[in-house]
Amino acid sequence: MKKVLIIGGVAGGASAAARARRLSEDAEIIMFERGEYVSFANCGLPYHIGGDITQRSALVLQTPESFKARFNVDVRVMNEVTCINRQAKSVTVKNLLNGTEYDESYDVLLLSPGAAPIVPPIPGIDNPLTHSLRNIPDMDRIIQTIQMNNVEHATVVGGGFIGLEMMESLHQLGIKTTLLELAQQVMTPIDREMAGFAHVEIRQKGIDLRLSTALSAVEYLPQTHIESDAAGEDTAHRHIAGHLALSLSNGETLKTDMLIMAIGVKPETSLARAAGLDIGELGGIHTNEMMQTSDPAIYAVGDAVEDKDFVTGQQTLVPLAGPANRQGRMAADNMFGRNETYQGTQGTAICKIFDLAVASTGKNEQQLQRANIAYQKVYVHTASHASYYPGAEIVSFKLLFAPSSGKILGAQAVGKDGIDKRIDVMAVAQRAGMTVEQLQHLELTYAPPFGSAKDVINQAAFVANNLLKGDLMAIHFDEVDNLTDDQLLLDVRNPGELKNGGYIEGAVNIPVDELRDRMDELPKDKEIVIYCQVGLRGNVAYRQLVNCGYKARNLIGGYRTYKFAKA
Amino acid sequence: MKKVLIIGGVAGGASAAARARRLSEDAEIIMFERGEYVSFANCGLPYHIGGDITQRSALVLQTPESFKARFNVDVRVMNEVTCINRQAKSVTVKNLLNGTEYDESYDVLLLSPGAAPIVPPIPGIDNPLTHSLRNIPDMDRIIQTIQMNNVEHATVVGGGFIGLEMMESLHQLGIKTTLLELAQQVMTPIDREMAGFAHVEIRQKGIDLRLSTALSAVEYLPQTHIESDAAGEDTAHRHIAGHLALSLSNGETLKTDMLIMAIGVKPETSLARAAGLDIGELGGIHTNEMMQTSDPAIYAVGDAVEDKDFVTGQQTLVPLAGPANRQGRMAADNMFGRNETYQGTQGTAICKIFDLAVASTGKNEQQLQRANIAYQKVYVHTASHASYYPGAEIVSFKLLFAPSSGKILGAQAVGKDGIDKRIDVMAVAQRAGMTVEQLQHLELTYAPPFGSAKDVINQAAFVANNLLKGDLMAIHFDEVDNLTDDQLLLDVRNPGELKNGGYIEGAVNIPVDELRDRMDELPKDKEIVIYCQVGLRGNVAYRQLVNCGYKARNLIGGYRTYKFAKA
Repeated sequence: MKKVLIIGGVAGGASAAARARRLSEDAEIIMFERGEYVSFANCGLPYHIGGDITQRSALVLQTPESFKARFNVDVRVMNEVTCINRQAKSVTVKNLLNGTEYDESYDVLLLSPGAAPIVPPIPGIDNPLTHSLRNIPDMDRIIQTIQMNNVEHATVVGGGFIGLEMMESLHQLGIKTTLLELAQQVMTPIDREMAGFAHVEIRQKGIDLRLSTALSAVEYLPQTHIESDAAGEDTAHRHIAGHLALSLSNGETLKTDMLIMAIGVKPETSLARAAGLDIGELGGIHTNEMMQTSDPAIYAVGDAVEDKDFVTGQQTLVPLAGPANRQGRMAADNMFGRNETYQGTQGTAICKIFDLAVASTGKNEQQLQRANIAYQKVYVHTASHASYYPGAEIVSFKLLFAPSSGKILGAQAVGKDGIDKRIDVMAVAQRAGMTVEQLQHLELTYAPPFGSAKDVINQAAFVANNLLKGDLMAIHFDEVDNLTDDQLLLDVRNPGELKNGGYIEGAVNIPVDELRDRMDELPKDKEIVIYCQVGLRGNVAYRQLVNCGYKARNLIGGYRTYKFAKA
Repeated sequence: MKKVLIIGGVAGGASAAARARRLSEDAEIIMFERGEYVSFANCGLPYHIGGDITQRSALVLQTPESFKARFNVDVRVMNEVTCINRQAKSVTVKNLLNGTEYDESYDVLLLSPGAAPIVPPIPGIDNPLTHSLRNIPDMDRIIQTIQMNNVEHATVVGGGFIGLEMMESLHQLGIKTTLLELAQQVMTPIDREMAGFAHVEIRQKGIDLRLSTALSAVEYLPQTHIESDAAGEDTAHRHIAGHLALSLSNGETLKTDMLIMAIGVKPETSLARAAGLDIGELGGIHTNEMMQTSDPAIYAVGDAVEDKDFVTGQQTLVPLAGPANRQGRMAADNMFGRNETYQGTQGTAICKIFDLAVASTGKNEQQLQRANIAYQKVYVHTASHASYYPGAEIVSFKLLFAPSSGKILGAQAVGKDGIDKRIDVMAVAQRAGMTVEQLQHLELTYAPPFGSAKDVINQAAFVANNLLKGDLMAIHFDEVDNLTDDQLLLDVRNPGELKNGGYIEGAVNIPVDELRDRMDELPKDKEIVIYCQVGLRGNVAYRQLVNCGYKARNLIGGYRTYKFAKA
């Protein structure tokens, strides 16, 4: 009879416990959770704060009792493992309810402690109006602060998943919200120019978005009232619990009623470190592909471990629920003598930002550059389904691929419809080792309400293959502001589009449909840098010019990519 | 200077013309279309009839003038090619506007004539109130009949894509609608039991759905009035153009104001046949994988040609827009000396049926049986995104795979949300040659509004792998009504679920969470046939019983699959 101990009762731990029981009816399985809750919907926490998920109870997926009844797992909440005694194959546990300590032996141990929010040592950060969001008690505290402190203005620090979701939730409650982000962009899994779409959406919704701005100090002003100009307050009102004065890296100050710290998470490794288990260079628990730590009797999964990156093969930290759940299941398999191997992490992720979805899989440009991986890129902007059918929205899509092999390196998409679908398609294609040549042939669902006969992905693949085959010479959005005297910028859109939507300084305008007749207006000794709205007409013009002996380039993704890159 | 003639100006032909021009500025390109319109949105026709697409002009994507301006293609509408003179490398063309005939020579010729609606020789079918829907004039005639004949009841024959879309459009106009289908199900790309979900939706919306029912005769009753009982008419009303009396295969009669024939299409091969080009066994034009017919100077694409089936390698007829468009582009490439090969057709398809989407890729059970391909199957029913986030809907998903290799053979999905996405994922995975083992590792987008940490596809893969590894012994929905005395049927749901949602006759009920304590109520000498609502709790119970020495099977897809299979 095998005795399995599991530390951490959320995604990875709970998956492992359930799977372990299905594999063995007579194993003894004990799951320790230092918090009050197991198997809660941590990804749902912001949405309960914002009111989308009305019932708090909907977030508690399992209780110790339900886990016991269904899986015969001994779930011990409010029991914190304080020490792993590898020699003795036991753990020391502190019962947080009554303060007692006890040892529990194991045959195999699973670590699923997760990752903790990073709260940097900013002066004054430790105050009752500053919160981070990891679990249900955190959520309860935030809700309580909103209510008790009559929060009219909140500040979120960090434009990652949780920061963005909190921003939206607070906004939804009618709270004026400032989002501070140290980087030049929110959502760093996508590249800067793609984040521009998110910036526009965030600002349009009335959020005070401040990029390249850090929080440098916090002052807690209890029970007093100071008008918050930033929040647009013009009449006096009293706070119950007080107020914060934030000092920002740009010298500005900001008054706010609540502060949410969401700059990121770090793996919980204290137990593993103390037990002498190998820790990776990135600070996560090291495991082999069977999710086994440097001690073969101890497995580790989820946000606390380093994964192998699917694209680069390097170690990576990806605190996401999908990998955690699958790793938990797999670790249980291996504890019971199977040989399941984790196949690497792509980092596939998605975030709802108001009406937009922003998603990505694989690596972005910055990451590829850091890993010294050569890449090419294309952008397409095309309708989420047949444009003549109601409800179509533009999918803005970026594809990164290897110039030599055509292998897919990464994909990013932003838009109001069909974003999850396109990135899922790319995540599968990438995991299957497909090339952009093969992507052309994808046969995806098409009927007017759902797609297009040539889907976004097919179209991106066509452009990528045009590049690889030399049918297209590209220029990118960040190059067109710095043309030389040997280049001429040609806008092939209709004059009305330039007038209403803007254009790139210095462009000559010849609509694509007039180009054949007006080609002699263009100099043959200059390189013609063509652009249109999204790149499609530009390509038609490009082929015309090149087939007539001109030198030319086409702006990939067109004016739309150029414009939003600056947003 | 190459001279390219293209016969047919819709999906494949128009794609080929545009691509050909991008490849060569000096080629002469002439596109013949016997109808009035080129490059129209044929997939959108039913949606204009139903009013979703309000502007008729939205369906006309290109005109001869716009094609000329952008691509310098000489588009000749109302010009019908009547003969291909292969020796002379020319075609004979009849100008339908003035009746004149002329010859046009070619270097390469592309056939993209499409497929025509099948109208069987049913007595009386040739009448002014019977229509099929292929092009814009057909659509105009249907709209005219609806208006002129004051149509209150319509009958659609055929439950395929066009039939279902027409059914929905007519219903949306407030017209009482009967759908006649010869088979036991609508949407034959999916299997009968999955079609049950569609049948329920269709009937719930008030459609008079009659399966296993053929139309045997039609009588046209001009300008008289007879009450239509089937349409629920109880007061007299006068028709402008008359009325139809339909005789059905079951001996019943049906009075209706309009008849839409949508039983399928057949490839247009008359020109190809007359020219002596090879025709395949299924009646489509035969091409090699470069889309070249038996005459190397003649290419053919789209609904008129036979494709190679991606799964079986056999010839197939798949009249869908996606393949047609990609084949057109590819044919143009090859005309200009490239070497692009078509990679086979999976038949990926989707249809909106009121609030449902029904989609599939690859082969269904009937097709696999016909092709003598061994398969296993699993069903899962799970939420389209995190169930605690608003708007989640059940995705009912079927996965077919090879027992030996685990290769994906086909997938089917039905539901109100996320159906296109799941079938797209499967279409990519299948095309990439993935196995169900690999499917487990898919890393798909997850945030509560978009997915689940273990997506539908991951879950289906888990079940499939449980089967392949012997962790699960399956029983299917069509076997549980015929259990032997050596089997015992066990319902592991909660009593309330049986009471409110029904159950399978003869089942013993022990809720899964009580099973551990009540296991001794079950006989060890019988095989325990377990079921729950969708199969998940059944699997927990199955593992418990088997690990305790019982013989057992679990109903894959649970009671939900069983119940809807009968619908």
